[in-house]
Amino acid sequence: MGKQEIRYAAKVSLDKPAAEQACLHNRWHPDVPFTGTIKNGEVVKIECVDWTGGQIGNNDSADDVRDVDLTKVHYLTGPFEIETAEPGDVLLVEIQDVQPFQDQPWGFTGVFAKENGGGFLDEIYPKPAKAIWDFEGIFCSSRHIPGVRFAGLIHPGILGCAPSPEVLATWNKREAELIDACSHMSRDVALPPLTKSVHAGSASEELKAKIGKEGARTIPGRPEHGGNCDIKNLSRGSKVYLPVHVNGAKFSVGDLHFSQGDGEISFCGAIEMAGVITIKFTVMKGGMGQLGMKSPIYIPGPCEPQFGPGRYIYFEGFSVDEHGKQHYMDATVAYRQTSLRVIEYLRRYGYDDYQIYLLLSCAPVQGHVAGIVDIPNACTTMGLPMDIFDFDIAPHVPAKKMDLGSCAYASS
Amino acid sequence: MGKQEIRYAAKVSLDKPAAEQACLHNRWHPDVPFTGTIKNGEVVKIECVDWTGGQIGNNDSADDVRDVDLTKVHYLTGPFEIETAEPGDVLLVEIQDVQPFQDQPWGFTGVFAKENGGGFLDEIYPKPAKAIWDFEGIFCSSRHIPGVRFAGLIHPGILGCAPSPEVLATWNKREAELIDACSHMSRDVALPPLTKSVHAGSASEELKAKIGKEGARTIPGRPEHGGNCDIKNLSRGSKVYLPVHVNGAKFSVGDLHFSQGDGEISFCGAIEMAGVITIKFTVMKGGMGQLGMKSPIYIPGPCEPQFGPGRYIYFEGFSVDEHGKQHYMDATVAYRQTSLRVIEYLRRYGYDDYQIYLLLSCAPVQGHVAGIVDIPNACTTMGLPMDIFDFDIAPHVPAKKMDLGSCAYASS
Amino acid sequence: MGKQEIRYAAKVSLDKPAAEQACLHNRWHPDVPFTGTIKNGEVVKIECVDWTGGQIGNNDSADDVRDVDLTKVHYLTGPFEIETAEPGDVLLVEIQDVQPFQDQPWGFTGVFAKENGGGFLDEIYPKPAKAIWDFEGIFCSSRHIPGVRFAGLIHPGILGCAPSPEVLATWNKREAELIDACSHMSRDVALPPLTKSVHAGSASEELKAKIGKEGARTIPGRPEHGGNCDIKNLSRGSKVYLPVHVNGAKFSVGDLHFSQGDGEISFCGAIEMAGVITIKFTVMKGGMGQLGMKSPIYIPGPCEPQFGPGRYIYFEGFSVDEHGKQHYMDATVAYRQTSLRVIEYLRRYGYDDYQIYLLLSCAPVQGHVAGIVDIPNACTTMGLPMDIFDFDIAPHVPAKKMDLGSCAYASS
Amino acid sequence: MGKQEIRYAAKVSLDKPAAEQACLHNRWHPDVPFTGTIKNGEVVKIECVDWTGGQIGNNDSADDVRDVDLTKVHYLTGPFEIETAEPGDVLLVEIQDVQPFQDQPWGFTGVFAKENGGGFLDEIYPKPAKAIWDFEGIFCSSRHIPGVRFAGLIHPGILGCAPSPEVLATWNKREAELIDACSHMSRDVALPPLTKSVHAGSASEELKAKIGKEGARTIPGRPEHGGNCDIKNLSRGSKVYLPVHVNGAKFSVGDLHFSQGDGEISFCGAIEMAGVITIKFTVMKGGMGQLGMKSPIYIPGPCEPQFGPGRYIYFEGFSVDEHGKQHYMDATVAYRQTSLRVIEYLRRYGYDDYQIYLLLSCAPVQGHVAGIVDIPNACTTMGLPMDIFDFDIAPHVPAKKMDLGSCAYASS
Repeated sequence: MGKQEIRYAAKVSLDKPAAEQACLHNRWHPDVPFTGTIKNGEVVKIECVDWTGGQIGNNDSADDVRDVDLTKVHYLTGPFEIETAEPGDVLLVEIQDVQPFQDQPWGFTGVFAKENGGGFLDEIYPKPAKAIWDFEGIFCSSRHIPGVRFAGLIHPGILGCAPSPEVLATWNKREAELIDACSHMSRDVALPPLTKSVHAGSASEELKAKIGKEGARTIPGRPEHGGNCDIKNLSRGSKVYLPVHVNGAKFSVGDLHFSQGDGEISFCGAIEMAGVITIKFTVMKGGMGQLGMKSPIYIPGPCEPQFGPGRYIYFEGFSVDEHGKQHYMDATVAYRQTSLRVIEYLRRYGYDDYQIYLLLSCAPVQGHVAGIVDIPNACTTMGLPMDIFDFDIAPHVPAKKMDLGSCAYASS
Repeated sequence: MGKQEIRYAAKVSLDKPAAEQACLHNRWHPDVPFTGTIKNGEVVKIECVDWTGGQIGNNDSADDVRDVDLTKVHYLTGPFEIETAEPGDVLLVEIQDVQPFQDQPWGFTGVFAKENGGGFLDEIYPKPAKAIWDFEGIFCSSRHIPGVRFAGLIHPGILGCAPSPEVLATWNKREAELIDACSHMSRDVALPPLTKSVHAGSASEELKAKIGKEGARTIPGRPEHGGNCDIKNLSRGSKVYLPVHVNGAKFSVGDLHFSQGDGEISFCGAIEMAGVITIKFTVMKGGMGQLGMKSPIYIPGPCEPQFGPGRYIYFEGFSVDEHGKQHYMDATVAYRQTSLRVIEYLRRYGYDDYQIYLLLSCAPVQGHVAGIVDIPNACTTMGLPMDIFDFDIAPHVPAKKMDLGSCAYASS
Repeated sequence: MGKQEIRYAAKVSLDKPAAEQACLHNRWHPDVPFTGTIKNGEVVKIECVDWTGGQIGNNDSADDVRDVDLTKVHYLTGPFEIETAEPGDVLLVEIQDVQPFQDQPWGFTGVFAKENGGGFLDEIYPKPAKAIWDFEGIFCSSRHIPGVRFAGLIHPGILGCAPSPEVLATWNKREAELIDACSHMSRDVALPPLTKSVHAGSASEELKAKIGKEGARTIPGRPEHGGNCDIKNLSRGSKVYLPVHVNGAKFSVGDLHFSQGDGEISFCGAIEMAGVITIKFTVMKGGMGQLGMKSPIYIPGPCEPQFGPGRYIYFEGFSVDEHGKQHYMDATVAYRQTSLRVIEYLRRYGYDDYQIYLLLSCAPVQGHVAGIVDIPNACTTMGLPMDIFDFDIAPHVPAKKMDLGSCAYASS
Repeated sequence: MGKQEIRYAAKVSLDKPAAEQACLHNRWHPDVPFTGTIKNGEVVKIECVDWTGGQIGNNDSADDVRDVDLTKVHYLTGPFEIETAEPGDVLLVEIQDVQPFQDQPWGFTGVFAKENGGGFLDEIYPKPAKAIWDFEGIFCSSRHIPGVRFAGLIHPGILGCAPSPEVLATWNKREAELIDACSHMSRDVALPPLTKSVHAGSASEELKAKIGKEGARTIPGRPEHGGNCDIKNLSRGSKVYLPVHVNGAKFSVGDLHFSQGDGEISFCGAIEMAGVITIKFTVMKGGMGQLGMKSPIYIPGPCEPQFGPGRYIYFEGFSVDEHGKQHYMDATVAYRQTSLRVIEYLRRYGYDDYQIYLLLSCAPVQGHVAGIVDIPNACTTMGLPMDIFDFDIAPHVPAKKMDLGSCAYASS
């Protein structure tokens, strides 16, 4: 008698290329082979690599961020067969814990170069930059952004079940249409299927080629299954309800984050890490119909860091861009402005802009849609928790400027 | 000795048309005459009419919502001269309390007709509708949306200082450019100055005409001063830091809400009410420069209703619209989808869609920008507090459908 | 149609002695005549005098506290007949709001003289003292304790239903036995029935005399009905479940507090005030049996001030008294020591001990029973919210001593 | 470059008797030899055995609880030399994490037999009983108490620095005086030094004998250093400020709890477990004087489970005991009554009393001192979080009785 250690459904190696590990894959496709079976009701541990598959080092240069190969990211662990799951069911995923590996207690936040990845503010901040975060228990701090320290709201950036062939076809069609419609834009608006660097677990070469041609890229979250939704609150104790589109669900998970802010604005913006997630899986038969579900829903866990409502400074942004142009009800423009307002504010303590850009990406900032009906201005807000700083950032005047070092930059 | 009753800086009448009351106005313009003077450091009470100036009745028909005259709304109380305030200062507005009038313990939430006002979901829900909310102390409930009851997060929808002539000119120019650029759209994208129904407090007819020609409409919040930002968290105990653009600040406030959800999606979406707000005013000399402030910032109060993170159901939405069209990183589209996901969910208990649309507009739902960098999909979420319902709305299956009545509709 | 103003079930006068007002009384007895009737399910407003019935003034001397007539306190409003309530039922009291009178926006906290009232620390702090608190909306501050300002956790100190004759007899018997058993102690251990200063509402002289002889004093809370439980969390939005012992319940309420700390240690320790409480009454038939209820239970409201767990400094106290004597598992001794630890700590900022004693009585400090099984030491804790201070009280060293004035003392 | 794995300052074996491990000890005495050295500012991991040193098994019988050898408990890890620490300093202990051992994911809660250990309610519940708790990530549940599941507020029951010879002499004198004074009582009131089962780490036999004769037992917390304070909130992220009495501090820690309720009422009441704690140590020179510190203080961490104030049912208890006897201001009696009120309430769902007694000991219940000045009744409260139950325990009537199994009992 006695509780046994929780079973590992998959283990990864940090010493072997992700592309060579059969329990990993980097495309959404119904034909990626199962990497294991999990019982309905079972609790398992699943190991995950970091989202760059180890391309980023614990050092003081952003050269690795500048040079990152973005076709070799988002290696997910799975897909797992969840017994009894069928299309139309809902898979309840209870996240019991997420932990970094004990022997690798650090993670990173990056700003990609505008020409290799970019990010939400890349028009203004085009240079690559990086911050390394050290973990001490539930806390993290960075030598690249002195003066802050906070408890992680640790979570997976990506989780979801595989698309059915029909769902996958829908994705490919609508994203291709967007690419067509936006051919005038100077930037990528979506990522079509790509045969380069495909990894499809234990698939045969033939199957792998097929998956490369058809498989959905992992960057965007998508409404039908969630995927890379990058929701900071899918943390310890949360419950996620996922639509099931194929027999056995084909559940995958990856892209673990020690912490992230709403929006994950610098793109590689969370504190990216390798580690292990503990999940309980439960199949809700016929759940999609009964819950009227088109997209995942979730309930956060009870242990999120709580600062008290009065311990946030909130910044407002509107849909007037940095060139003074009025946009119509554009919450994306508004949120970009909101982010810039925080950067302008934190400068007064001595941070440089890239430090703040990195910080807002990974610290638990609250991004809200405030007003979305008052034409022509959408209004969004960003709440910055004061208690993550070890000095007082309340809006007293005047403030004392400090020497707050520098984040890592690329060599020139 | 002894504390005196707090001074009223302005009182309104609910029996007299708003347009005839000298302490009210409905345009932003630097020349609207002061309606009183408030000392730096003083605490005062300010009475406000509801945002329709009394056009909506406590009854079971939405005819009044359908027929509302939208040129006669947003009567603000003010502008007040705040002693010592000058351009470049920051006006700290501490909201000590907000209360409905004791003898008018009710408010309303409306869905405007698509052809007269519209709202965030008017393509899908074009009909006028209404819910009346009764107040009992800090709580409200509605005969039109049975099964819910919640504490108000009571706040002003509008507060701000008057624009300078330069700021006003900027507004008029950029919004006119938007109107020009969007002339192909079948809907209003902004509201240019309008001479009809101008109210400029005690202004002479001549001045009033000028204000009508130049004055900014009150519907949008604007980055330079806040205004109609419709931020639900500017509630009891919050501190709002406002840029000052003219001598004496010319502060105005109005559009009190008993409660509102993030986004205020049905436009007339908060629980609109008349009442009184208690404010402490403090001038921070040179604050704009010292805080690097381009738009207002605020700190919420300590007494917001707290449900615990695990008492929210969160719904996800992505920038793929209801016709299946993929949009590029459009948080507005995503938030509309998020709202629709909640409506689809709550149907299963027996609510009709308009009831839910009204509810999401005014109950304290949390609207978050979750992911804004994963091309092409922006992801937003909406958190619905379970504890405002008097039955269990957790995602158990199956659910029991109930008879949950109806909101008020217009006669046909 | 339309919501009417909420009915006042009782109004009091602040200009007339409490003893002359028929809607007030100051004894618990089943025969105090009803002062009005309230329907099952009804919401009413009830006005209350402050607990000294107006003996304390808004001034800078504690002479009134020193000389207070303690036979003329605790005038309760009621008793009210709640329709359909019978012995064995539970009366659900939903506190929708509590407010001070608008024209009397202040309250007081007192330390009674050891020889006239005393308090939890009167062996150490025997002198009378006082602080006056000014109310500004939901906040209060005191000229007698500079540097603090906080939102009130506003609540009634006393509420309950009348005892039956049997319950009253039990009270009188067991408290008399205590008085007998403690006759060697130099201080009052309980307050037996007293004919002096009896007020029994509209009772005839004969009945009043009977009530004086038999009626229970209002100072202690008692398990069978609650009464003067002085629980700080019975605030806006809370639900209190009260045992019913007589037909019609005979519900009374009074002793309103703008704020109180756990323990209310200085006895007259809350911020005492006159005002109005809004309550919804619901009878739960047979509730006592079904809930297994011997004493009241309650559910706090959702809007209590929330500071975040990391914004409290907690102090520990053990059952070793200030003379170094070891007591056996005595949580009362432990809590006294805990209180002293906070006083010793706050001295370093420049407060004098009486200021702190007053502050801990009325600010929302959290008093916890931590360990109660580790012989011989009970351990209790007191959590002091840092955010009520306008300077930083975190345990950094060293601290800067300030001039923090003085509370009100009595003339000598 | 790169963060290294955090150093283990001590490792324990679960396969070897605690009494044979040199890094453990079970007495407080200034002469227990150091088991290692930790730098000022260093973060280390420290392994701990469970408080019975492995006497309790993961099974369905309480025979082991009944027969437990209480002289062989409370094996602490340490004492550690903290570099630079001297008497008069304060040792800041930041608890970065606490975890059970991965291969031992379970713990236990016990009710000791009245004649072997006893507990807070042993007059009423004299029998031994036990519940085994299984851990799944941050959550625990028990086959012996179905229907509950909650996130652990994981913490050490014991931490503190060694007493100086003077402090130790004070302890021995005052506890001996209590034993003398209470010789008429039928139960142990304190535990004097005991030579049996002494473990003093790597001490020589001679030193061990001395420590046996003089050393303080570990059961009680004591004001001068904290020790076994059993404060549930010393969890992940908390900061504890400890007085230093000897050179090098001689810090020890142990008695890890996965969760505990305020009071830990069944004595072996927390969820006892073995595991590892991660701590950062910082010496505050001269801190005792500067903080006016006589007993430890602490600041809780930001990640405590947050249920929202309205998600607790609070029960009231007064200082009238279960025989109807009135006690004078006795918070211990009041808290016992409060505990009984919760037991009486939860019976209605089908739990037996021992199950509830166990549950209140280990679930995160909030025990408050409510009123401590209203003679003769102290009033305490206990808040029971509703969200730890998987059925609705709100005070609706009637409730449905369920089959809720049984805890483990001893064979007869």
